[in-house]
Formats: sequence, structure tokens, C-alpha cells
Amino acid sequence: MREQYLLRDNRDSILEKDIEEAALKVTLGSERKTLQTEDERKMTAYHEAGHALVAQYVKDMDPVYRVSIVARGGSLGHTSFPPERDRYNETKTRLLSIIATSLGGRAAEEIVFNELTVGASDDIKRATTIAKKMVTEFGMSDLGPISYASVSGNMWIAKDFDEGTHVSSEMEAKIDTEVKKIMDESYAKAKEVILSKREMLNKISTRLLEKETIESDEFKELINS
Amino acid sequence: MREQYLLRDNRDSILEKDIEEAALKVTLGSERKTLQTEDERKMTAYHEAGHALVAQYVKDMDPVYRVSIVARGGSLGHTSFPPERDRYNETKTRLLSIIATSLGGRAAEEIVFNELTVGASDDIKRATTIAKKMVTEFGMSDLGPISYASVSGNMWIAKDFDEGTHVSSEMEAKIDTEVKKIMDESYAKAKEVILSKREMLNKISTRLLEKETIESDEFKELINS
Amino acid sequence: MREQYLLRDNRDSILEKDIEEAALKVTLGSERKTLQTEDERKMTAYHEAGHALVAQYVKDMDPVYRVSIVARGGSLGHTSFPPERDRYNETKTRLLSIIATSLGGRAAEEIVFNELTVGASDDIKRATTIAKKMVTEFGMSDLGPISYASVSGNMWIAKDFDEGTHVSSEMEAKIDTEVKKIMDESYAKAKEVILSKREMLNKISTRLLEKETIESDEFKELINS
Amino acid sequence: MREQYLLRDNRDSILEKDIEEAALKVTLGSERKTLQTEDERKMTAYHEAGHALVAQYVKDMDPVYRVSIVARGGSLGHTSFPPERDRYNETKTRLLSIIATSLGGRAAEEIVFNELTVGASDDIKRATTIAKKMVTEFGMSDLGPISYASVSGNMWIAKDFDEGTHVSSEMEAKIDTEVKKIMDESYAKAKEVILSKREMLNKISTRLLEKETIESDEFKELINS
Amino acid sequence: MREQYLLRDNRDSILEKDIEEAALKVTLGSERKTLQTEDERKMTAYHEAGHALVAQYVKDMDPVYRVSIVARGGSLGHTSFPPERDRYNETKTRLLSIIATSLGGRAAEEIVFNELTVGASDDIKRATTIAKKMVTEFGMSDLGPISYASVSGNMWIAKDFDEGTHVSSEMEAKIDTEVKKIMDESYAKAKEVILSKREMLNKISTRLLEKETIESDEFKELINS
Amino acid sequence: MREQYLLRDNRDSILEKDIEEAALKVTLGSERKTLQTEDERKMTAYHEAGHALVAQYVKDMDPVYRVSIVARGGSLGHTSFPPERDRYNETKTRLLSIIATSLGGRAAEEIVFNELTVGASDDIKRATTIAKKMVTEFGMSDLGPISYASVSGNMWIAKDFDEGTHVSSEMEAKIDTEVKKIMDESYAKAKEVILSKREMLNKISTRLLEKETIESDEFKELINS
Repeated sequence: MREQYLLRDNRDSILEKDIEEAALKVTLGSERKTLQTEDERKMTAYHEAGHALVAQYVKDMDPVYRVSIVARGGSLGHTSFPPERDRYNETKTRLLSIIATSLGGRAAEEIVFNELTVGASDDIKRATTIAKKMVTEFGMSDLGPISYASVSGNMWIAKDFDEGTHVSSEMEAKIDTEVKKIMDESYAKAKEVILSKREMLNKISTRLLEKETIESDEFKELINS
Repeated sequence: MREQYLLRDNRDSILEKDIEEAALKVTLGSERKTLQTEDERKMTAYHEAGHALVAQYVKDMDPVYRVSIVARGGSLGHTSFPPERDRYNETKTRLLSIIATSLGGRAAEEIVFNELTVGASDDIKRATTIAKKMVTEFGMSDLGPISYASVSGNMWIAKDFDEGTHVSSEMEAKIDTEVKKIMDESYAKAKEVILSKREMLNKISTRLLEKETIESDEFKELINS
Repeated sequence: MREQYLLRDNRDSILEKDIEEAALKVTLGSERKTLQTEDERKMTAYHEAGHALVAQYVKDMDPVYRVSIVARGGSLGHTSFPPERDRYNETKTRLLSIIATSLGGRAAEEIVFNELTVGASDDIKRATTIAKKMVTEFGMSDLGPISYASVSGNMWIAKDFDEGTHVSSEMEAKIDTEVKKIMDESYAKAKEVILSKREMLNKISTRLLEKETIESDEFKELINS
Repeated sequence: MREQYLLRDNRDSILEKDIEEAALKVTLGSERKTLQTEDERKMTAYHEAGHALVAQYVKDMDPVYRVSIVARGGSLGHTSFPPERDRYNETKTRLLSIIATSLGGRAAEEIVFNELTVGASDDIKRATTIAKKMVTEFGMSDLGPISYASVSGNMWIAKDFDEGTHVSSEMEAKIDTEVKKIMDESYAKAKEVILSKREMLNKISTRLLEKETIESDEFKELINS
Repeated sequence: MREQYLLRDNRDSILEKDIEEAALKVTLGSERKTLQTEDERKMTAYHEAGHALVAQYVKDMDPVYRVSIVARGGSLGHTSFPPERDRYNETKTRLLSIIATSLGGRAAEEIVFNELTVGASDDIKRATTIAKKMVTEFGMSDLGPISYASVSGNMWIAKDFDEGTHVSSEMEAKIDTEVKKIMDESYAKAKEVILSKREMLNKISTRLLEKETIESDEFKELINS
Repeated sequence: MREQYLLRDNRDSILEKDIEEAALKVTLGSERKTLQTEDERKMTAYHEAGHALVAQYVKDMDPVYRVSIVARGGSLGHTSFPPERDRYNETKTRLLSIIATSLGGRAAEEIVFNELTVGASDDIKRATTIAKKMVTEFGMSDLGPISYASVSGNMWIAKDFDEGTHVSSEMEAKIDTEVKKIMDESYAKAKEVILSKREMLNKISTRLLEKETIESDEFKELINS
């Protein structure tokens, strides 16, 4: 009966990498074999390298922990930045850096291939959500410290009505303008990083195509090389 | 008891064409006899030929697999482009080509007959849906990388509210402008292809009226003739 | 027991007219005796004659099958154009003709009596519905091949949300403008036909007042006289 | 047992007036004693006289059947115009006359007392509803023969969605403008009648204050005097 | 057992004041002891005096019956004007007077203390509701006799849809303008009364602070002094 | 069995501080140990000091009762101003002071660190809610005494419809303008206080970093030093 607990590669002790793999499976899904063409793998590699590179050069981002083009769940790759320590609050500076990092993948696609892919949709959506909250809940735009919280939506409709946050269409337009300004400036920032570190982007992508995954130490070495 | 498994034309072995027919029946519906006039069949033939021709001359489309004016289910004909291989991502280039291809049928109707038919409605709807997603979810318009996902609608209302994607009427107008620009440019592209390959369109239509269905190899020959 | 199956006028065989009457009863309702004044009957006759006359002189309409001022169900008269043969598709040309024909009754009211009646409401509603679909679903207006299908409404709300067709108020205004343009041009067409065939309108109306119903052959004779 | 069927005033035969009273009770409610001041009764009398007078001098209205300042149900008086005969259709001319007649009471209040009362609300509401239908359903305004039926609302929401009648805000504004134009012109007409027949209005009101109810014959005599 | 019916102050007969107190308890709630500062009591006294004074000097208001700064239920004081007799109708003149009277408390706060309190919210709300009905239902504004009844809302949504009163945003703006005009003019009227009777306001307030409640006779004496 | 009722630190009598702690636990949650960096603690200290300092120098605020950077529940610190006595009414002056005090934390963040944090969101939301009610319910803006109560939302939708408070988009824009004006002026006031008492802010923050909590007496001493 012992055998039925054997690990997948017939080892009988649990290594740290087993735990890591288990965690990844839970958060990102199982590894998935794909039959991408070489061009597609290259696009994926530059996309992930774009995230990692921008994260490295904007203010106050946590360090890159892993960059990978191993497909998992619905995604062709991932780049992760687990917080170095517990965070109790977030600053405007960090939120802007997170948005720019999210758009780093698409910036690489545009600069390197002059092409855009559907794969960047989730990055764009997540970044837009943060930008909208900066404007409507956190008071971090030129509209100043004022709350239009329901504009960002809430999980429970009833709550919206309770909280009294109907907004005029004029104010909605100003909110949209501020959100777009944050997105545009953040994307410009992402492109600026990538253009100024174009060689580094190539190095990371090349390494990814060779090894599929780059861990934090190797990433640091690459950056400092 | 054996007899009850006999195929419809009294053969007792299953040929590849039986399997094809079964697949078509499932996806498009059974063949349907119609009493179209010769003018109506001609309109149908040029419509399908329009799809196939545009697909051939825009970038990155999968090759034409079959063009047919056999009526099936609710439709008078169909042109199919099954993907050559698994696709893991889609590019802006391909999405624009798919839209132009969808509008190829209507472009042929307008150019050849100076007439428009209700039969193009589904093509137009499918193309519009893609164009709207390009603008609001994929960040593939002049509005740049920003997400207005709920504007495209979602299957579950609750999700919309949860995700906070209310949009000002000014931004809705900009989105509509971008969507229309994509549709107008794609339709112009479709017409350009058809006008520049007018003779080829006639050839494909004529062949369709003779044979009802053109398979991929024959289509390639026609194009290369 | 035989007697209980006797027909209403004591005949014991079923004639073709019995079947016709049965069909009319099902689609339009039973004949209804009214106590209209002579002026009211005249208004009704000119209204129906207006439909029939316009149908005769616009492109691609099916021929007039019957014109009648026998009141049935909620209506004071009816003019019918059953399709000559199965139709598998509809053209822009035919849809415009159907709209003009629908407005033919009101055009006659206005031109002959300089009066308008509530009786034209259903005609106007049906025509408007077609015009709206031409603009929002069939791509048959100056807005070109683009779909705003939900603007036309759908039977199931859920479907609308699913299909993602929210439209900006700017685009709604353009849609309304196009719909109104189709209606205005179609009404102008209807009036043009009636003004140019004013004598024929009188003949048809006079015959209707005499005989109550004109069948297709008699209608053709009248038109050709 | 006979006694229990005795009529309220101890008569034992049913007179025509008993039947009339029964009908009034069903449609307008029972007679209600009020303690109005003499000023209030005068206001009521002029209001009802206003309806009756306008009805007399606009086109195609049915003749006045009864004018009364006997309070019944929620109303302080009533003026009735039962149709002379069955009507199968309604003309624009008659609808405009009905609107002007509805506003006749308020026109009298304004002209005679330079005051307005809440009592005219139902008249105004009923007249507005007709005016809106003239514009949105009957094609009887400068917007021409086009239907915006759902703008007028329907009893069943589902029906609205089914019928596809969402309207742009530009068109809603045009509709409101047309409705207001009909109301303004009809009110002007009502005031014009009252100003030009000011003496007759006094006569009718005076008679009403004396007798409470004027029947059709007496009304005709008054008008012709 | 008799004792258990003894009144609260050990009397054994019911006096008129017991009945009054019972009625007040039902409509306004029980008396409530508060620990207001002297400044707060003064604010309350001037607020109630403001209502009473304006009521006295606008047209057609019923006479002041009682002014009180005894806190009851959720309110710190009350001023009442029960109708002298049954009313069967209301005039524009009286509605405007009721609005001005409602705003009399706030006008006193502003003029005497140059301060505003949350305590005036219910007065403002009630007055606004009347003003809106004057515009949208009673035809008592410059918009004339036309009904936008659903704009004022109805208790049952279904009723709104049934009655067909959707209004364009242009008309909504005009309605809001008219409502605001009525409110502004009524507030100006209230301030005008208070400014011109400033001494009387002081007298009423002073008496209220001494006696807490002023009955109608005493109020009349004060006014006439 | 006695032991099980012993207090947490083995005392057997309840002290006033036990009751205080119990009350804090109920309203703010239990104390929570955090691993904030020194920079983060400093940000928190200046934020709370900002609230306390502004409260001290605006009109009619209750005195500061406690300032603390002990994390409790979801919050990193708190400053409390329990009312000195029962309040029966609130003035415009006090509401403006409460808004400025709420924004005092963010004003300190901006002035001292030139940074903004997500931690100010709840302050901003609470302040905005008050500002909106001042405009739409309390009649305390340049829009004057008029009620747009439903714009602020209500817990029960049905109530909104009942109360008839639909507002035109023009008026919504004016309301938003007034709300923003109140917020902008209050924030300017908060910054003005902090800039003019910059040294005092440093003192309070330094004391907070040393002692974590400052009680009312110590706060008074600090202010008067």
C-alpha cells in the first residue's frame, strides 16, 4: 500500500520543488503541453520578458521571483512578484508601477513584433481595474480626494444603492479621462523602459526560449550582467 | 437485423464522406432542398465565392477548406476555414482578416448585383462582435491598452457589476467610433480584394453553380489557374 | 345526425370558398358587421385601395391577391399579397417596397381626405420595425455593414446582455436618423405612386364600395383598364 | 316580502331616471354630499361649463349629453359626451377636439378666476396621453408616419423588449416637443373658444349653480338662446 | 379595579387636554425630554416661529393652531395648521403658500443665526415634492397644462410603465428648472416675510422659550399686539 | 471554578481600562500585531496626527479623545472624537469641520511625504457621503433649499420610486459640482491647518511613534505646549 503514495517520478521523499509545483498547480493550473510554433513561443517569451523587465526598472516593485513560458491553465506563461514582506498599505507610487508592469508584456509585443495579441487582455483588464480604483476610490488623480465608489461597481447591487453613489454623466466622463490618462502614462512608461533596455529584453527572451523558466537568482544575474 | 444498420445508399461500409456528412449535419444542419430561382442561386454563389476569395488574399487566414451552396439548416451556403493547427493566441492581423472575410459575401452582393440581402446579417453580426472586442477588451484600437469589457456584455449580469466597468457616454461614443472604423476599413479591404480579383470571383461562382461544392484542392487549382 | 354537419347555408358539399373563408377566419378573424357611415366606408375603401395601388407600382412586390373592406377581427379591411413562391432570402429592394406598400393606406387618407386616422397605426408600426432592422441588423443603410442588433430589441433580455450590443447615445441618434430617412423616403414613394395614379385609386375604391372585395383577377383587369 | 324591493323613495315602479342613476353610480360613483363654499361651487361650475362650451365649438365632437356639478366618487362634477353611434376609427381632427375639450375646464379656471386647481390634473393627464399617442403611434405629428410605440409605455415590459422600440434621446426630445406643441395649440384653442363665448360660459355656469345638472335638451336651448 | 383606569396624574375624569395629548402622541409621537443647550433650544424656537410667522402672512393658509418646541418622536418641535373645514380642491395659490411656510423654519435659521441645520431636511423634502407635482401633474408652471406624471414617481413601478410617461432628458431638465424656480421664489417669499416681521419673530420665539407651546388664541394675540 | 473568570492578566478586579478595551474591541476590532517597517509606521503616525490636528483647529468639533497607531481590525490606527454631550441637530458648520477632519490624514500624507496611500479611502468615502447629503438632502449648498434625496440613494429601491426623486442629468451635474466644491474647499482647509501647524504635527507624530496611543489629556498638553 505504500506505493500508492509514491511521487510521480518514483521518488519517496517530498522535495521543495514538489511543494512549489503543488502551489503553482493550485494558483495557475497544471502544466500544459502546447504545440506552439517557434514564432508563437518567441512572442510568448518576449511578452513575459516585457513584464519582468519593466518590473525591474519602475519604483518600489517587489523583485521578480520567476519568469516562465511554461503554459499553465489558460495562460501561455507567467511572471511572478510575491511581496517580500507583509504589506499593510499601498502607495500611489507602487500602484502606478504595478500598472506599468502589467502593460510590459503588450509593450514588448508592439515594440518587437509590431503586432498585438489577444493574450494581453487579462493584463489590460487588471491594470484598468487598478487605475479606475485610483481615480474613484483612492483619490489618487487630478479629481482629488473624493469618492465615486459605485462607479467601480460592487459585488452586491443593493450595497450600491445603499451607499448613494450615483454619478452625473459629466463626472463619469471626467473619471474616464483620468483613468485613460493613468493607463496612457503607464503604457508610455512601460515602452520607455523596454526601448531603453532593448538588449536586456533580448537576453531574457533568449534565455526563456532555452530554459523555459528563469528563477529569481538567475534573473538577477542576467540583469546585472 | 443486419439490414437496419445499412447506410442510406445501401452501402454496407462507412466511407470518409459519411463521416464528413455526419460532422456537417451536426454543425450546420442537414442538407435542405430549396426551390430557389436561378437568380437566387446566383446570388448565393457569388456571396459564398466572396467569402472564399477575400480569405485567400488577406494576411494569415487559414486556407479555404470548402465552399458550398448546398443549403443546410438556416443557411443557403457556407464557406469553411478550419484552423490548420491548434492556435493558442490570436493576433490583431488575423482578427482583421477574419472580419474582412466575413464581409466578403456582402461585398460581392454589392459589387456584382448592386443589391443587398438579409442573408448577410449573421456575417455582419459576427464581424461586429469581434471588432467590439478588439476595441473594448483586446486594446487593439486607437484607444490603446485599456479595458471596457462590460461594454461588450457578459453572459452573467452579476459579473458585470462585480467587475466595475461602467463607462461614460463620451467613452461609449469613442468606442462606437473605433468599432465602426474597424468595420469600415475591413469592408473597404473586402471590396478592394473583390474588385481586384473580379474575374476569379466569376470563376468560383460559376464553378459553384455547376458543382454546388468546391473542396480545398479544387479551390487551390482555381485560384492558381 | 347527418344534419348537424350541414354547412351554414344548408349546402351539403364543401366548396373552395368554404375553405378560403375558414383560412381567413383563422388569420384575420370572423367577418364582422359594422354600422359605418358612408363617409367611414369611403375612408376604409381608399385606405385599402392605397395599399393595393402602391404594391402594384413598386419593384419586386408579389401581386395583389385580394383587396377587401369586409371588417374582420380588429380591422376594417385588408389587402393581401401572399408570396408567389417560397422565398429564401430578402433583398433591400423588396423591403423598401414592402414599407412603401404598408404606408400606401395612410398616403391615400392624406391625399384624398386631407385627414389621418388611427386605423393606420398597425401599418406604421410594422413598417417601422422593418426599417429599424434594415439599419441595425441587415446593414442596409448609410451606416454600412455593422450590427446594432440589440437596439431592435429581442424577445429574451438575457440574450441581449449575452450578445454584447450596448450602443452609445450618439450611435442611437444616427440609427434613428437612418430609420426616419427610410420611412420618409418610403412614404414619399407611396404618395408619388398615388398622386400619379389618382384616377386608378378612384376606380379601385369605387369598385370596393360596390363589391366589398376584389379578387386578384378582377384587380388585374382594373389595373390594365 | 314585497317591501324589500321598494325603491328608495317608496315608489314601486322603476322609472327611466332610476336606470340612469344606476348607470352613473357604476361609472362615476355614488352621489356625494359636500360642504363646498359658494366660491368652490362656483369654481366647479365654471370648470364643467368650460368643458361643455369647448366641446360645442370644436369640430366633430359628439354633442354634450349632460353637465353636472353633483359630486360623485372622487370628482366634483362631470360633463359627458357619449358617442352618438358606434365609432370604428378615429380621425386626427376628432382627437384634437377631444384634447381641447379636456382642457376646457382649466381654461375656464384661468380666464375667469386667474387661478388654477389640482382638480384639472386628470383632464391634463388624459389629454397628454392622447397627444403622446398621436405622435408616437398614430403618425399624426410633424415627425410623420413612424412608430415609437414603446415610448408611450406598455402594460407588459416584456412586450416592449420584444417589439424593439428603444429610442435615442434626440428622438425623445423631438417627441416631447411635438407632444407639447399639440397640448399648447389645443389649450390655445380652448381659451379662444371660451374668450369668444364668455357670456355663454356665464349662462351655463349660472344655470349649473341653480340646478346642479343640465341635460342635453336644456344645454341645446341655452346654446341657441 | 377602578384604580387601574386612573389617569396618569391621578385624576378620575378625562379632560379635553387628555384627548389632545392622545392625538398628538399618535401623530407626532410621545413627548421626549432632551438635554439641549440653551443655544439649541433657541435655534429650535426660531425655526418653529419661522413656520408660524410665514403661515400668517401668505395667502389662503389655514390659521396657526399651535406652535411648540416640545420634542416629540424624531422632531424637536412642531407647528400645526389643521384645515378649518373640509377641502375638496387645492389652488395654486395655496400650494405656493404651503411651500413658503415649510421653508419658513430654515429662513429663520439663516436670517437669525446665519447658520443652517439638518433639522430642516424634512421641510425641504416635503416642499420639493409639492413643487414637483405642481410642475409635472397639476400643470401649474410655465410648462403649461401637460402631464409628466411618472417623473414624480409612483408607488408601483408597473403603473408607470402602464401609463406611458417616459420623458426626454431635455424635458427633465426643463422640469427641474421649473421646480427649482418655484422653490427659489417660495424661499424668497419666506425670507421676505421674516425680514419684514423681524420683531414679531423675536416675540414668538421668546414666548416659545418661556412657555414651550403657544396655542391658537395666544398666537393670535401675539400677532395682533 | 472561580479561576475561569480571571481577567487576562491574572487580576481579579475589573478596571476602567478593561471596559475601554472591551468597547474598542467591539467597535474597532481586536488589537492586531503588524510587522510594519519604520517608514510605514511613520506614515501611519502622520496620518492619524493629521486627523487630530485638523479636528483641533476647525470650528465646533468635539475635542480629540484619543489618537492611536495601534492596528485594530482592518485599520492601522484611529483617532476618536466622541460627542461631549447628546446632539439633537447638526449644523452646516460642524458638517464642514467633520469633512475637513476626515481629510486631515490624507493632507498630512501629501504634505509630509508627497505620497498618497490606499489607507485614506474610507476617510474619503465617509466625507463624500456627508458632502453629498449636504447638497441633496440638507439644502446646504448654492443649490439652496431643495431636495434631491434619491440621488444619494436609499436602502430600499421601492422607497425611491415612491418618493418621486428622479433628477435630470443637468441637475446631476450641478449636484456633482457642488459636492466637489465642498470636498475641495474642505481639503484646502485641512491642508491650510496642517501647513500652519507643521511643527505641532511633527510633535504629535513623534509622540505617537514613541507611545503608540495619546489620550485626551496628553493631547491637550501637547497642543498647548
